[in-house]
Amino acid sequence: MKRYEELAEEVAAMIATQLLLPGDKLPSVRQQHARRGVSPSTVFQAYYLLEARGMIVSRPRSGYYVAPQRAALAPEPDSSHPLDASTTVDVSDLVFEVLGAVGARDIVPFGSAFPSPQLFPMERLARAVSASMRRLDPWSTVTDLSLGNAELRRQIALRYQLDGVPVSSDDIVITNGALEALNLCLQAVTRPGDTVLIESPSFYACLQALQRLELKAVEIATSPRDGVDLAALEELLQRHRPKACWLMTSFQNPLGSLMPPEKKRALVELLARHGVPLIEDDVYGELYFGKQRPGLTKSHDSAGLVMHCSSFSKTLAPGFRLGWAVAGRYARQVERLKLTTSLSAPIPLQMALADYLAQGGYDRHLRQLRLTLAAQQNTMLQAIAVHFPPGTRVTRPQGGYFVWVEMPAGIDALALHRSALAAGISIAPGPIFSATRAFRHCIRLNYGHPWSPQLEEAIATLGRLAQRAASGT
Amino acid sequence: MKRYEELAEEVAAMIATQLLLPGDKLPSVRQQHARRGVSPSTVFQAYYLLEARGMIVSRPRSGYYVAPQRAALAPEPDSSHPLDASTTVDVSDLVFEVLGAVGARDIVPFGSAFPSPQLFPMERLARAVSASMRRLDPWSTVTDLSLGNAELRRQIALRYQLDGVPVSSDDIVITNGALEALNLCLQAVTRPGDTVLIESPSFYACLQALQRLELKAVEIATSPRDGVDLAALEELLQRHRPKACWLMTSFQNPLGSLMPPEKKRALVELLARHGVPLIEDDVYGELYFGKQRPGLTKSHDSAGLVMHCSSFSKTLAPGFRLGWAVAGRYARQVERLKLTTSLSAPIPLQMALADYLAQGGYDRHLRQLRLTLAAQQNTMLQAIAVHFPPGTRVTRPQGGYFVWVEMPAGIDALALHRSALAAGISIAPGPIFSATRAFRHCIRLNYGHPWSPQLEEAIATLGRLAQRAASGT
Repeated sequence: MKRYEELAEEVAAMIATQLLLPGDKLPSVRQQHARRGVSPSTVFQAYYLLEARGMIVSRPRSGYYVAPQRAALAPEPDSSHPLDASTTVDVSDLVFEVLGAVGARDIVPFGSAFPSPQLFPMERLARAVSASMRRLDPWSTVTDLSLGNAELRRQIALRYQLDGVPVSSDDIVITNGALEALNLCLQAVTRPGDTVLIESPSFYACLQALQRLELKAVEIATSPRDGVDLAALEELLQRHRPKACWLMTSFQNPLGSLMPPEKKRALVELLARHGVPLIEDDVYGELYFGKQRPGLTKSHDSAGLVMHCSSFSKTLAPGFRLGWAVAGRYARQVERLKLTTSLSAPIPLQMALADYLAQGGYDRHLRQLRLTLAAQQNTMLQAIAVHFPPGTRVTRPQGGYFVWVEMPAGIDALALHRSALAAGISIAPGPIFSATRAFRHCIRLNYGHPWSPQLEEAIATLGRLAQRAASGT
Repeated sequence: MKRYEELAEEVAAMIATQLLLPGDKLPSVRQQHARRGVSPSTVFQAYYLLEARGMIVSRPRSGYYVAPQRAALAPEPDSSHPLDASTTVDVSDLVFEVLGAVGARDIVPFGSAFPSPQLFPMERLARAVSASMRRLDPWSTVTDLSLGNAELRRQIALRYQLDGVPVSSDDIVITNGALEALNLCLQAVTRPGDTVLIESPSFYACLQALQRLELKAVEIATSPRDGVDLAALEELLQRHRPKACWLMTSFQNPLGSLMPPEKKRALVELLARHGVPLIEDDVYGELYFGKQRPGLTKSHDSAGLVMHCSSFSKTLAPGFRLGWAVAGRYARQVERLKLTTSLSAPIPLQMALADYLAQGGYDRHLRQLRLTLAAQQNTMLQAIAVHFPPGTRVTRPQGGYFVWVEMPAGIDALALHRSALAAGISIAPGPIFSATRAFRHCIRLNYGHPWSPQLEEAIATLGRLAQRAASGT
């Protein structure tokens, strides 16, 4: 990280922790220079960066100020209260109908599942890929058709070790994105007709996986702050004898909830007592806004029941489709499923990411990405507070790039989705996140795209459409 | 193709069709120059090429001669006669045990599933990948996460059109290798417990797919020359009411059988009468030694029941893991299965192959590859005839890079596999190609690696080990 980026991050942290409040004047360039020995140009660069993110504003001939809070933020939603019943899953038609509209480039991408690709280091990745193709040993294209490039697996294992989780290269199976990893893990521990416990709301791809494998879903009450309710989970474990539990304990999609460290430990222990594997989708774990990466459930996994899946698709290179699974005692089954369903992930891209990781650029990129996302969340929360109908509630995730918006009960999110689309705006309506098509008045919004007047206007439009729906006109 | 390569191909064809016989003198350089206007250096280059492939030999101060046939080729094996019974499949342990040994680089790769990567245009591919990364529009890494790169699908559709099959870009789903395509097709039309008709012997990955999806297999009598017996197939269709038929009608793995055009038509019509989908694994179809690509079953598919799967893994770029499915009336199901199991194939590699195909290098590469493989088959057949025990039968495929060797009945291919491995040679033993572990005295050998004294010696060693096993010592 460059000096001005460090300084910007420092100031951003002071704003985030409310050490600096809206309207406060920032230390002047002269002060920063005199007191901290930072060159004026470094201070200017840092302040430009923060201004670009909407966190501070400049007043001519006066200096820089923390951006005013334009409105009190909307309150947070309560925990979900799903029905205690197992249900077959039939959401795929709806999900495809909704998502089919999201991909187009001229649509405001609030419904998108990815952050803006402009936030990724495409040039460095291009150089890494070119270099890996030049160095490619032809034989490796045949002999590496296996569980993954050895160097990539080593680099991933190193990251686990730095997070305090003893994972070795051999524990890792490289997959075609986390989605394949999750599907293989689910397949390794279930048979058609089995029951799986999931969050409420839950990621639609999880619902689609259950539907594809003809599994039954039981939804667990989930808090937008700290994830599934463990007391509710314990009851469901006893009542439904599930074969697996599929969760996202860090920055859950769509809620953004983050389970605290002690709750993660308790979760793993509870599942271990019942002998139920935890399939963990951790693709957002690196996108934390706090001081350090949230702890991993895998770090408490003495029973080998945690199947930890992640990828580079949300943090570095969506188009590469590279993910992985660390499947504990099910590692061998997952390996075999990978070999028999798609053999291997592509060799040159694995080599390229291994190189990129070895050169240390990833953490620098992630620091910048987290800062950007944190600032954009702030801006979106303010915009929602201004434009959405009274009674709207919004999550305030500590990471990731989604907020979950609970609108007044009369608003139909699917109808809003259609009218928003007609206005050139995509959203992700609540019912696609539920086996029972609940959350009819909720939507998930993506703040992973650099803020702009166009996005501000789109939130205003959404707010107007929601207002209209709320008043029944 | 360069002029000397054309000339070499011409002469090779004359040898293959026995217009030139072993021991015949080739037209001299002077004759070729005088009669056909070919420059002496072109003739020399052509003859060097053929000599390098072992097809002709030079005699000092005399000229070039067709290489002597060192032994009459072994006779071809007969059709298989599988039991008429459906069976659950449990081969995966055996397959993994056998294949686990095949990947190592210091092992003679007769058991390998791939041709030598040295036969692929790695430098051109490297340039194509580098160029595609430089041109990569960041947005495409998100918006192209779908059924595949539009240009790649167009290029593939063009190839179908040239082969007389009306396939459009929209009919094609890009997958992670043909293996994923085949698995998705199988999943689209079956449920656990269903019966699927397969060849006898059949590709082990087909058996593994059946096992994974808990399907029952019924094996069809299959001729090493022209594929499954249609009369037998008709009986099995009536008796077992299968949900699918998984075949390779062009250069079947492991037999190398090629179904003639009229038989392909009859096959498709027969299956259509029974309403049974044909899952066709056509990964070797481009590796023909004859004048033109074998016809495709898909060209007779008026009912939309043919699910045609192929890839670039056996012909161009194994490590890219790019394949596709054209799934007829099941296209939509296969698309959805792809999206929900692994979302998308990697974007940059799809772009690179699209470019490579658009530039026209693929057909030139394929012409060279076919010529090389045809010459290497010839050499291997001769080596087997010299070194293997009397009573050995060998297929003579018209394409691909496998021969199927039926040894005297007393020889145990699994024992031979182990003793060969101890001698640094891999082979693919017959039982891994059978749901009932039949073909105990058969092996599949890969001739897709440039011939060398080491390979010749390895065949001699294999022959000795087989001789020893045959005589029970």
